[in-house]
Amino acid sequence: MPHITLPEQSLGIRSLAEYRPDTGQHLYELAQTLLRGESSLSEAERELIAAFVSYRNQCTFCFSSHAAASRYLFQDDAQVVDFVLNDYENAPISAKLKLLLSIAACVQTDARTVSDALVAEARSNGAVDRDIHDTVLIAATFCLFNRYVDGLATITPPAEDAETWAAMGERLGKNGYVAPKTNLNL
Amino acid sequence: MPHITLPEQSLGIRSLAEYRPDTGQHLYELAQTLLRGESSLSEAERELIAAFVSYRNQCTFCFSSHAAASRYLFQDDAQVVDFVLNDYENAPISAKLKLLLSIAACVQTDARTVSDALVAEARSNGAVDRDIHDTVLIAATFCLFNRYVDGLATITPPAEDAETWAAMGERLGKNGYVAPKTNLNL
Repeated sequence: MPHITLPEQSLGIRSLAEYRPDTGQHLYELAQTLLRGESSLSEAERELIAAFVSYRNQCTFCFSSHAAASRYLFQDDAQVVDFVLNDYENAPISAKLKLLLSIAACVQTDARTVSDALVAEARSNGAVDRDIHDTVLIAATFCLFNRYVDGLATITPPAEDAETWAAMGERLGKNGYVAPKTNLNL
Repeated sequence: MPHITLPEQSLGIRSLAEYRPDTGQHLYELAQTLLRGESSLSEAERELIAAFVSYRNQCTFCFSSHAAASRYLFQDDAQVVDFVLNDYENAPISAKLKLLLSIAACVQTDARTVSDALVAEARSNGAVDRDIHDTVLIAATFCLFNRYVDGLATITPPAEDAETWAAMGERLGKNGYVAPKTNLNL
């Protein structure tokens, strides 16, 4: 049960944006710009970084929804998402993406551990400034979303409910992040 | 030295908002709404929660600037900020604020540890839904800012440079959070 009174029919981050729409709007706009706006990384890769960080933070709502969005966006390569969540260092992805995920992992635990050596290795495998920037900001942003969703104990469908998450992933893949319009007069 | 090329004359979060203004704008608007908009908590208390979380994340830029903003806003009670950073459980603050800081500490380490019992204790000491919500969102938001600033190794004046931080705290206290207007054509 959530720690505060939230709209009963709403889940996760959406229930929080309905509770406080003025901050919710900025959070949805940040997600839309970061995950759907211009970037050197594909939308599927950005959703994968979001899912990866959320998985490490054990945030069921965020990792299930963003893993589903990433699977939808990777299309025929959808299985890469579960390889990455289970063991990213041996997943069938580029060396560059593995190194960006290593940077994301540092940001998730203690951002001060992103080392010059790790960044240099990512660069030598093709990463440019914008890849590094967007990876760090996506990882940091999901450290916010994960904490907001779990710190208030928002309603989350079971991780095993594959159909619910697949439908949510398809919506996020097709429509992106659109803030709820109004406060529900709680 | 920062991990990516940032405007040389700019510090911390500002250098990142100049590097990528579209995300920077949403981050500054979030900070302004959350720390200066309508809330059941005072601006000084909200800056204190921001400084407290940043201190625990060992983010020198964020804890120094928000501690300074909180000292400026607490006016004659400025010394409360250092009491809280050093030992909040024995600081001369209300039981309610101590319990909100305990909630913020849980959010900083693992948001899933915010327990029903802790929230109930905060309520029995006067906390309402909005106090709990804003505390969790401020704590979560600074887990983003801290990681963004340190994950890209942005330029930070030394923590000991009291004059620089006091001037920054006064600016933040008076003017709030205003995003840089333009990309600097890096």
